[in-house]
Amino acid sequence: MPKIYNLDQIRSALKNIDPIDAIEQGFLAYSEGKVVVPPVGELIFDDPPGDVHIKYGYIIGDEYYVIKIASGFYENTKRNLPPYDGMMLLFSQQTGAAVAILLDEGHLTNVRTAAAGAVVAKYMAPSKVHCIGILGTGTQGKMQLDYLKSVLKCREAIVWGRSQQSLDAYVHAMAYSGFQIRTTLETSEIPNNCNFIVTTTPARSPLLFVDQIQPGTHITAMGSDTAEKNELDPAILQKADIVVADSISQCIERGEIHHAIKTGILQPDEVVELGNVIFQKELQRHTEEQITITDLTGVAVQDIQISKAVYEALIS
Amino acid sequence: MPKIYNLDQIRSALKNIDPIDAIEQGFLAYSEGKVVVPPVGELIFDDPPGDVHIKYGYIIGDEYYVIKIASGFYENTKRNLPPYDGMMLLFSQQTGAAVAILLDEGHLTNVRTAAAGAVVAKYMAPSKVHCIGILGTGTQGKMQLDYLKSVLKCREAIVWGRSQQSLDAYVHAMAYSGFQIRTTLETSEIPNNCNFIVTTTPARSPLLFVDQIQPGTHITAMGSDTAEKNELDPAILQKADIVVADSISQCIERGEIHHAIKTGILQPDEVVELGNVIFQKELQRHTEEQITITDLTGVAVQDIQISKAVYEALIS
Repeated sequence: MPKIYNLDQIRSALKNIDPIDAIEQGFLAYSEGKVVVPPVGELIFDDPPGDVHIKYGYIIGDEYYVIKIASGFYENTKRNLPPYDGMMLLFSQQTGAAVAILLDEGHLTNVRTAAAGAVVAKYMAPSKVHCIGILGTGTQGKMQLDYLKSVLKCREAIVWGRSQQSLDAYVHAMAYSGFQIRTTLETSEIPNNCNFIVTTTPARSPLLFVDQIQPGTHITAMGSDTAEKNELDPAILQKADIVVADSISQCIERGEIHHAIKTGILQPDEVVELGNVIFQKELQRHTEEQITITDLTGVAVQDIQISKAVYEALIS
Repeated sequence: MPKIYNLDQIRSALKNIDPIDAIEQGFLAYSEGKVVVPPVGELIFDDPPGDVHIKYGYIIGDEYYVIKIASGFYENTKRNLPPYDGMMLLFSQQTGAAVAILLDEGHLTNVRTAAAGAVVAKYMAPSKVHCIGILGTGTQGKMQLDYLKSVLKCREAIVWGRSQQSLDAYVHAMAYSGFQIRTTLETSEIPNNCNFIVTTTPARSPLLFVDQIQPGTHITAMGSDTAEKNELDPAILQKADIVVADSISQCIERGEIHHAIKTGILQPDEVVELGNVIFQKELQRHTEEQITITDLTGVAVQDIQISKAVYEALIS
């Protein structure tokens, strides 16, 4: 019988682990070819609209394999229900037996996504970040900023949102984050004032344009995880000195890099993979003037790593 | 929070449902195009050898969608562990929320597979079955015979196995099945004596050959569920008057029909689908002389139907 844990137990366990390190190790293993990640399973519903993704895989020679189920049913908010739900399941690579069910309600996906943003900052940020820019006021808008705290010294942030109401709610929620937060309704304020930018929206047309981007800027684009979503003018990727994908194979199919490759202004061989950036210093930012972009679409190895780390904390 | 049930609870609930009817309704919905079944997800392990299959889908307009995880780790028997494990998960089509986790350890897969065999017998068996032949002494060898009891009057059976030891164990296990069971080590004894045959082995080369098959015989081939496994000489399918697939699209890729199509002696348009056979009398057996074959490879709609039926019994 697998052990079953609820969200409260998972939140407690998270206090005893370092998700950023777990995710960093995962990207390393992934880019070294040690991770088996089949194509994502998908179910689409029309009425009400919803989608379910099944991400699964394993690190070769590891103790567990992991299956993650995550759903988004966007009309749930009309009934005051959370739109997202999910669970992560751990199984033994030795016997196939179910070991643990983490009923995380989607929270571990948020954690592993925010942790990936911190890994990116560790290797790609300018040496002096004077202001962090966040586009989007949702869960990742908050969590990305929160997770940057342990890897960047900067405590100034500007947040862009579509309404003053959502911006006010953001500032209220982040009151104890340790950041000095200003808000804006103008996207241009972000590239004008920030040299480390995170885009976290579900936008389907660009929010930032090539002429706005100043030398020395890093952008982590993590909102776009499908073929349709798009936050950056593809010309930004053409102008960038370094373009990093969490998974090259996945970023060819979805996300910002996908758009730039489709329009022909970026070639797949101009993209480097995050796991390689981590251990090859020459792939990291090496001047203060470079423009660098990282596209995060979410890779199953992040689910594998976060669920393993949480489970090990739960049983220790 | 989903409700979680163990195998004992699931076994109790099974006593209060009719799995054969649930599976029959599932095949009907499937052949009517009302079921969304994406390709099967798969993880393969080398050391120790193991495989994991993720089958998932939903009936359009139904209350739940279902994800099934099933594993086979064949060296488990060396450690006195069962080789198979699994669970079925029900989620709401309205909100995406996890509703129930059935920790069935693979049992419901066995039940839905045996129930499919009974559905086939209901529509394809000769009107007078004088003896049932079973190839294979494993779980399905026993369960297929057991589930035939409610749809066939015949209580005579001959079982073939590779060793006298496994045959003795079979007879012992089926002592209270209500069947008069003889055993044989010669495959030819089955077609010589039986006009309703079920093949349940993981054989990779044919056990039955075309010259052995007598007029008026029905064969349900359910052992082969991959592209490699093969229990029937493909020429049997060429000779047959009616060839039925549980899923035409799936049987083109795997199972007995797949082998016959690959060798060019059977065309996809000569195959009819089980769900259509159920409601179209002209597709069913209509003379006592016909040779009929049904190839069962296992379809996610069976998992959907059995898990729904069990869950509804559990909460009623």
